[in-house]
Amino acid sequence: MPIADKMVKMVEAASMIRKMFEEGIRMKEKFGADHVFDFSLGNPDVPPPKIMQETLLDLIHDDTVSHGYMPNPGFMHVRQAVADYLNQTFNVGLTPDLIVMTVGAAGALNDCLRALINPGEELLTPAPYFVGYNQYAFVAGATLITASTRPDFHLDLEAIQTAITEKTRVVLINSPNNPTGAVYSAEELDGLGRVLEAASKKFDKRIYLISDEPYRKIAYDVTVPSVFDAYNHTIVLTSYSKELSLAGERIGYLAVHPKAEDARLIAGAAGVANTMMYVNAPSLFQQVVGRLQGITVDIDIYRRRRDIFCQGLKQAGYEFDVPDGAFYLFPKSPIENDVEFVNLLKDQNILAVPGTGFGGPGHFRLSYAVPDKTIIDSLPGFKKAIQSVK
Amino acid sequence: MPIADKMVKMVEAASMIRKMFEEGIRMKEKFGADHVFDFSLGNPDVPPPKIMQETLLDLIHDDTVSHGYMPNPGFMHVRQAVADYLNQTFNVGLTPDLIVMTVGAAGALNDCLRALINPGEELLTPAPYFVGYNQYAFVAGATLITASTRPDFHLDLEAIQTAITEKTRVVLINSPNNPTGAVYSAEELDGLGRVLEAASKKFDKRIYLISDEPYRKIAYDVTVPSVFDAYNHTIVLTSYSKELSLAGERIGYLAVHPKAEDARLIAGAAGVANTMMYVNAPSLFQQVVGRLQGITVDIDIYRRRRDIFCQGLKQAGYEFDVPDGAFYLFPKSPIENDVEFVNLLKDQNILAVPGTGFGGPGHFRLSYAVPDKTIIDSLPGFKKAIQSVK
Repeated sequence: MPIADKMVKMVEAASMIRKMFEEGIRMKEKFGADHVFDFSLGNPDVPPPKIMQETLLDLIHDDTVSHGYMPNPGFMHVRQAVADYLNQTFNVGLTPDLIVMTVGAAGALNDCLRALINPGEELLTPAPYFVGYNQYAFVAGATLITASTRPDFHLDLEAIQTAITEKTRVVLINSPNNPTGAVYSAEELDGLGRVLEAASKKFDKRIYLISDEPYRKIAYDVTVPSVFDAYNHTIVLTSYSKELSLAGERIGYLAVHPKAEDARLIAGAAGVANTMMYVNAPSLFQQVVGRLQGITVDIDIYRRRRDIFCQGLKQAGYEFDVPDGAFYLFPKSPIENDVEFVNLLKDQNILAVPGTGFGGPGHFRLSYAVPDKTIIDSLPGFKKAIQSVK
Repeated sequence: MPIADKMVKMVEAASMIRKMFEEGIRMKEKFGADHVFDFSLGNPDVPPPKIMQETLLDLIHDDTVSHGYMPNPGFMHVRQAVADYLNQTFNVGLTPDLIVMTVGAAGALNDCLRALINPGEELLTPAPYFVGYNQYAFVAGATLITASTRPDFHLDLEAIQTAITEKTRVVLINSPNNPTGAVYSAEELDGLGRVLEAASKKFDKRIYLISDEPYRKIAYDVTVPSVFDAYNHTIVLTSYSKELSLAGERIGYLAVHPKAEDARLIAGAAGVANTMMYVNAPSLFQQVVGRLQGITVDIDIYRRRRDIFCQGLKQAGYEFDVPDGAFYLFPKSPIENDVEFVNLLKDQNILAVPGTGFGGPGHFRLSYAVPDKTIIDSLPGFKKAIQSVK
């Protein structure tokens, strides 16, 4: 092969996603964009808060703004601002040397896995899980292992305990969850902490917890508990993609718990991984987010869409758990084969993603990061699709 | 170890560089910034062209500017703009599907190596070479092999021919060169193309040429010839770090020669690697550079510094080739041990990097991406240092 052997499978998987994407474009051209209901992508369409644009303009008018290299793990004043914000919010005692500014949450996860995982070691995550985890495991040479969740998609601690082996290096959680919208409670996180502590003892090897939290601020009627409180050996990573609607700008960070075993060494190694892969997180947007700690897009827009969508789908006869966070619905497929049902939805010009791709067969994912009108206008199609199989 | 075994060496190497960097900060605090002459970093200090700021403001005031995800290999209109510019300049027939917008040249190189190299395959580069190549080879699981250059740091085609083995997958060149400032001529590139064509036949395996060109626009009194003309199986990669002084913003691209064997497959695989590692190149700066094709910082500033520095060092008795491009000088160390001589320079509050780190022992690297005054004020120190060993 002209390309690397191991890349062949990744290119094939990507070309399947691209085909789906291109099919969507083709459909929009054929039927008109207003008549195609695309719920396939998690691309925030809520505009960034007004203060984001003002901050950006302010910085660019300021002659001292830097577009050049900074110390690779990020501007010290930005890392300090992140640490201050996290300390105020979670009372965790972070110092800036435990923060690395990253190329989004994807970059942060790649950094952490590169820092921690020896080839062939295992990365354990509850399923359903974000499809990108396959790619990040691949990049780090890790083996991705899944543990099933409970029927409501919350943590099944016994399943996790059983799935941990002597090769497990990292357990990776994502709450609010993509694709299910589940938000883990403080109790279940505490339980997870106890499982990881016991397993680390049992295998005489520290198991680290990585908490991937890009949807932390997109939560409805629930508080998203701090993972720092549940387990000392935790790395939290996130991006400003959803909370400031800056997904394309690739800006995020990782924060290593000050009480984690070898916390400074791990933060240092993640910083080196960051340098090797991306050099540094984008300069201008580091400076933007440094000034916007705690600022969030208008969550009520997502809440309203969730409510409209849930009501409409319920009336049509779909079964699902009302999501507590993120901007996804993960309904049960009315027939066993979710790929087949997603094709039936496509006959109604509705684009969804089969749950199988997320390790959650028998379900399908709908992103409601779309205008209200798309949701409302799609509902008759959802009704027809479910009626066609009942 | 709490961190991955293979990362230990990388962290140690990075901590040496950090120590040097921190020593510089310590010296500046002790002696005052005006009395420390820091030539260690290649961080462009020439401001971006005025039109860069105007374009940025224009885009931000435009409500249609996107901060969200775009197709992972980049905005189609930006890839088209890059292809148009390259076609106008080099008459090479590029189409946008052969362009991937990347997180700087580092990201582009990581993408290409990930796309092409099977673990253990060899990446061959002429030495002295940019120190980051060690890291990018590590990330891809490639073995970095070097071929010596001629005394003037131009390509030694025989050395390259000899160094190619059945494991060689990629030959990587960098012209204008960091650290030497050499610019390869059309003739030597043609010669390299012939060597690679012959070696590909000999080993019955296509060897690809990657041309890392972030300094292409920083050239004095010479034209930097097109590598596309020399060898069909070429991937050119670059960034806007130096030509627009945007090093911290992490924006660049890769372009696969339309006549390369399996060109589209390789561009596709590099695009998938890009997605897996960084998701996409930063959105706002993609849109900025899309409008600024062919725009360059004021090169005369670098030329003036080069001339002042060369004249001063020559008068002090240093031996070096006057660089044709980039913003580095790579003088001979007056004593064999370059690390020792760099320490003697430090006694004069001059910070330089030993050539050993670049695979060029017996030399040291000076970056003249610094104000004229730093160069002028440092010259007495350079004189004292060389006199102390003569």
